[in-house]
Amino acid sequence: MKIGDKHYRSLWADESRQAVHVIDQSRLPHIFGILRLEDADSMAEAIHAMRLRGAPLIGVAAAYGVALAMNRDASDRSLDAASNLLRATRPTAVNLAWALNRMRDRLAPLEPARRAKAAWDEAQAIADEDVAINTAIGRHGLALLEREYAHHKRPINILTHCNAGWIATIDWGTVTAPIYMAHEMGIPVHVWVDETRPRNQGLLTAWELAGHGVPHTLIADNAGGHLMQHKQVDLVMVGADRVTRRGDVCNKIGTYLKALAARDNGVPFYACVPSPTIDWSIEDGIEEIPIEERDLEEVRKVRGLDDEGRYASISIAPPTTAVANPAFDVTPHDLVTGIITEKGIARASERELLAFWPQDQRSNAYLT
Amino acid sequence: MKIGDKHYRSLWADESRQAVHVIDQSRLPHIFGILRLEDADSMAEAIHAMRLRGAPLIGVAAAYGVALAMNRDASDRSLDAASNLLRATRPTAVNLAWALNRMRDRLAPLEPARRAKAAWDEAQAIADEDVAINTAIGRHGLALLEREYAHHKRPINILTHCNAGWIATIDWGTVTAPIYMAHEMGIPVHVWVDETRPRNQGLLTAWELAGHGVPHTLIADNAGGHLMQHKQVDLVMVGADRVTRRGDVCNKIGTYLKALAARDNGVPFYACVPSPTIDWSIEDGIEEIPIEERDLEEVRKVRGLDDEGRYASISIAPPTTAVANPAFDVTPHDLVTGIITEKGIARASERELLAFWPQDQRSNAYLT
Repeated sequence: MKIGDKHYRSLWADESRQAVHVIDQSRLPHIFGILRLEDADSMAEAIHAMRLRGAPLIGVAAAYGVALAMNRDASDRSLDAASNLLRATRPTAVNLAWALNRMRDRLAPLEPARRAKAAWDEAQAIADEDVAINTAIGRHGLALLEREYAHHKRPINILTHCNAGWIATIDWGTVTAPIYMAHEMGIPVHVWVDETRPRNQGLLTAWELAGHGVPHTLIADNAGGHLMQHKQVDLVMVGADRVTRRGDVCNKIGTYLKALAARDNGVPFYACVPSPTIDWSIEDGIEEIPIEERDLEEVRKVRGLDDEGRYASISIAPPTTAVANPAFDVTPHDLVTGIITEKGIARASERELLAFWPQDQRSNAYLT
Repeated sequence: MKIGDKHYRSLWADESRQAVHVIDQSRLPHIFGILRLEDADSMAEAIHAMRLRGAPLIGVAAAYGVALAMNRDASDRSLDAASNLLRATRPTAVNLAWALNRMRDRLAPLEPARRAKAAWDEAQAIADEDVAINTAIGRHGLALLEREYAHHKRPINILTHCNAGWIATIDWGTVTAPIYMAHEMGIPVHVWVDETRPRNQGLLTAWELAGHGVPHTLIADNAGGHLMQHKQVDLVMVGADRVTRRGDVCNKIGTYLKALAARDNGVPFYACVPSPTIDWSIEDGIEEIPIEERDLEEVRKVRGLDDEGRYASISIAPPTTAVANPAFDVTPHDLVTGIITEKGIARASERELLAFWPQDQRSNAYLT
């Protein structure tokens, strides 16, 4: 999508295949910068520190991390080491493990001398597939928004949490794909953007939407239930970091609260989910998905621009204040109206997800 | 309660009855200061700007605002003007209207020459009653915590939202009264403190609890549902800005989301409510309670201490970003396990609330 007049992907390989460029999200939307990463270590650091983030994007990034490692040393040992390093960066999003397993399955059978080229090709394929998947999610979600608009004949109000935008993927985004498509077709949409404390990824969503002229309103995470009670929300759309085979949706902390409010007010709740985000190996998301506990400073400090317009942080609580910072929660499948995938919209049930992906068609066969 | 070793109330009259002192909450917990207010205008400004806040406290503050006005001009016109000025400062908390009506009913029948003394006496009575009410709420809530502790025989985990602490009242607080009492009795309690964006009143709660040695953990507003799913919360206790006669609880924005999560996880949800917070004139809180929409800068900016320890604010979103800032929401009575009042714990129903306050015993007769 666009930043100013220029089209970007969130990550792209250097033509030399010696480096990967990524948009640095750690200071967005306040400061825009591009990182050039030349080895698996720096890629792992960038993922861990959330310089790049978003489940689909970190899957692709991990694949490129392996490609960078293969440039330097294409041995089995190097392949294992790079995979393990990258896998350990973030525990919750399944796309990371999925992409690493896919890379291993592609590379391990090859002679080391052929691995580097194959790795760059495979990483590029994963990136291109991400764009294709999001485009398909966009089309299925668009049909939903068209239907809402035909019914209401007024702007459709969508509430979203965190950032499942183009910057969290390679392009288009998952939640934002239908929104951008609807906006381009002239279907009026308005997005309620949850701030998404502690890391405020909602600001990325607001920045993206502003860049494409999509009407939106930033709100505190606390506000969504009140807006739903007062019929200000037509549907909730969120991304996911991992979805179980019965449709439990693990996503940014606080998503579950919005799903509860949606049910209580009869507002449809959709998760936009590319198939690499589905973990076919587990059923009960609350019991089985490891929830990342992040740096406590993320809660104690908030970043933005100071009075002189400099990028800065302030402490809202002293270092002596005990803090907890779980980064994700799980929305049980029975709160999920539908899962918008590249194959269509499934109810959040094992039967409907399996109907889209019979055993042999699961991209996540890589996980098993 | 205490700040350091010194006992404070959040507000007290000057002995000369020419001024009122209040703890300035607008920069707490970062900077502690005391304001001396000498007229109704400055009291109104302090309430509107949330230099003092909390439904019980602003009721008392408004009463003292009338007393300050009576010092200067005790005419009917001055009484009306001061009441109207103070009433317009905050629309949601009913304590403000309640206290102003009580002052009017006490003062209007008097000769102007007798009004100033009566006003100061009445404001003092309202303040002292607040302390007595909170002490009684504390005792009833304490019994609940004792029962939980006898059952679990481990620290009791209480989640609270916003600040219903001593600083939001004259002393003791509503939610915190039972917590302080339990802590003093050696019943181990631990409090999950919601940050409470946009104004972060959770930091006031953390500061209060730290000052009294009560174990607590600060969390993002998004985290509570996840903690409840994982059995980390034994009960939710919140304050209220207005409660309808059937027990709908209007409180700080985001409270409703925690009530939904509590119900979904079988966690009891209690509101701690002094009787002046009950609005007997209305039944349906969602339809009938006006929700204050506050300054949009509260969402765009966050305040705290910068790297040099100076009190400062940062902008998380540019001034061009559209923002909404509803300050309260309503938790429907059917999500409320019980209402802890000075008379005991009532179910959230008209029948049980009426049983505690037959028509002639309602302090809110002043509202009708």
